[in-house]
Amino acid sequence: MLKPLADRVVLRVKEEEEKTVGGIVLTSAAQEKPRTAEVVAVGAGKRNEEGNLIPLEVKVGDTVIFSEYGGSKVKVEGEEFLITHESDLLAIL
Amino acid sequence: MLKPLADRVVLRVKEEEEKTVGGIVLTSAAQEKPRTAEVVAVGAGKRNEEGNLIPLEVKVGDTVIFSEYGGSKVKVEGEEFLITHESDLLAIL
Amino acid sequence: MLKPLADRVVLRVKEEEEKTVGGIVLTSAAQEKPRTAEVVAVGAGKRNEEGNLIPLEVKVGDTVIFSEYGGSKVKVEGEEFLITHESDLLAIL
Amino acid sequence: MLKPLADRVVLRVKEEEEKTVGGIVLTSAAQEKPRTAEVVAVGAGKRNEEGNLIPLEVKVGDTVIFSEYGGSKVKVEGEEFLITHESDLLAIL
Amino acid sequence: MLKPLADRVVLRVKEEEEKTVGGIVLTSAAQEKPRTAEVVAVGAGKRNEEGNLIPLEVKVGDTVIFSEYGGSKVKVEGEEFLITHESDLLAIL
Amino acid sequence: MLKPLADRVVLRVKEEEEKTVGGIVLTSAAQEKPRTAEVVAVGAGKRNEEGNLIPLEVKVGDTVIFSEYGGSKVKVEGEEFLITHESDLLAIL
Amino acid sequence: MLKPLADRVVLRVKEEEEKTVGGIVLTSAAQEKPRTAEVVAVGAGKRNEEGNLIPLEVKVGDTVIFSEYGGSKVKVEGEEFLITHESDLLAIL
Repeated sequence: MLKPLADRVVLRVKEEEEKTVGGIVLTSAAQEKPRTAEVVAVGAGKRNEEGNLIPLEVKVGDTVIFSEYGGSKVKVEGEEFLITHESDLLAIL
Repeated sequence: MLKPLADRVVLRVKEEEEKTVGGIVLTSAAQEKPRTAEVVAVGAGKRNEEGNLIPLEVKVGDTVIFSEYGGSKVKVEGEEFLITHESDLLAIL
Repeated sequence: MLKPLADRVVLRVKEEEEKTVGGIVLTSAAQEKPRTAEVVAVGAGKRNEEGNLIPLEVKVGDTVIFSEYGGSKVKVEGEEFLITHESDLLAIL
Repeated sequence: MLKPLADRVVLRVKEEEEKTVGGIVLTSAAQEKPRTAEVVAVGAGKRNEEGNLIPLEVKVGDTVIFSEYGGSKVKVEGEEFLITHESDLLAIL
Repeated sequence: MLKPLADRVVLRVKEEEEKTVGGIVLTSAAQEKPRTAEVVAVGAGKRNEEGNLIPLEVKVGDTVIFSEYGGSKVKVEGEEFLITHESDLLAIL
Repeated sequence: MLKPLADRVVLRVKEEEEKTVGGIVLTSAAQEKPRTAEVVAVGAGKRNEEGNLIPLEVKVGDTVIFSEYGGSKVKVEGEEFLITHESDLLAIL
Repeated sequence: MLKPLADRVVLRVKEEEEKTVGGIVLTSAAQEKPRTAEVVAVGAGKRNEEGNLIPLEVKVGDTVIFSEYGGSKVKVEGEEFLITHESDLLAIL
């Protein structure tokens, strides 16, 4: 499986139905469309100025809302994933 | 309920009546329209350079004035919320 | 009353007469017009990199000169106030 | 062999077949095409603010996914390599 | 009198004669015209990252050369002053 | 001889033959053409935030690959040199 | 004489002859023309994040090569000087 680097995460993006789990519908004032996804892998974290590794806040299995602004799409064995930075994630559902 | 990440907050935005609670009417010199809202969830905070978590200044239940510049709108079970950074909040009413 | 967040202040802006208190007349080389105002509320301050809260330099009751560049206007019970960052304030009169 | 400086790595870029090792197919929302490559050399790392050398996360021999945005191509004895910063690498396969 | 905030100074700008005190004539390669002025008030200084106040280098009474790039003009009891940051000052005469 | 300041180096740039020492041929995805050169002088290094001098990674006599993006050309006794920052150097050959 | 502030230096710029002292002829890949000059005054230095004063690397009397990009020209008793930051200096001759 993919091991994301630094403060990145690998997301399994959920299809955009009107009613998603927990009844979330997303529109965005800032053009980019927020989406929901499942976290399938998390990076080891980013180093702060003193060189200490700062772990990520989200865990594997969390369902998150994220802004679809950046990120790279990757297909592994036919399934599509998105690799993005934790800072692009807005909230945990 | 939504758990905002890092220094973000979830706001229940109040309708824009001329007279709001406490008689607040907002206009903005810097184009973006300040609005009022209730804080319904707060993130765990942002890490400073030494890796320590810095808690947010606002609490759940506070009524705040915020500049409507950024943020992502989310509908949960039919009700609309705004997820934004604490730095977009101007004052507590 | 408004409680400004972080390093913001709430100002009661003084009308622009030719002769203001202390005989101040303001013109600005950098387009934005400096104005005078009374400080009616100050934030708790901003956190430095180590997470310590750094109090503001101005106090409630000070008369200040500020550049009218940024800030959000707010009307509370019919009276207009300006919420802006302390860094927009130039001097205490 | 090439010894990359600071936080750079030397990559042997893999040809872009539909099916790569581990079945990876890459497309990118952010225009630049993610690619896969083998890490053939790693730099000593970057110094943090305190002057300590922070080693890289990837090792020689890792297969990585990277965004083809930056980097310099170098031919050594007829074989092409890419020199780029670790921050351009997305994940380890 | 004006009390400048943070790392600002209040300057009494000298008229631009060909021959100024000490025979200084200023032209600037970078468009903005260097001028000379007397320092009439200095701020308490700026806080560094650890929160300590760093005093200014110039003193009241110094004659300085400064680049006329930024700053706000203020008239107090008919006399014009310039409020600017210490970083806009080039040298002490 | 030239003593470069801070984190700069002085390079004797090698002519661009198809086959250079070690068989290096350079092309660059990012427009600027990587070149090879010999390091003839190195600066004392840059100070980190704590004021400590951080020595450079390259040594006099190293052959390096560098991106020809910045730098200033200098002729000393008829021979041309390039003065550039260590951060413009990609790898040691 | 001029006392430059912070990390600035005062330079007596040398005329641009083909053959300068030590046979230096300067051309610049980055448009701005490198020049040579004598250092006639140095500032007390810049403060690092901890507030400590970091002395400059160059001394009065050094002959330096500098990029003519920024800086302000000043005439003192008929003689022209350039006030610029130490970071604009490339090397000591």
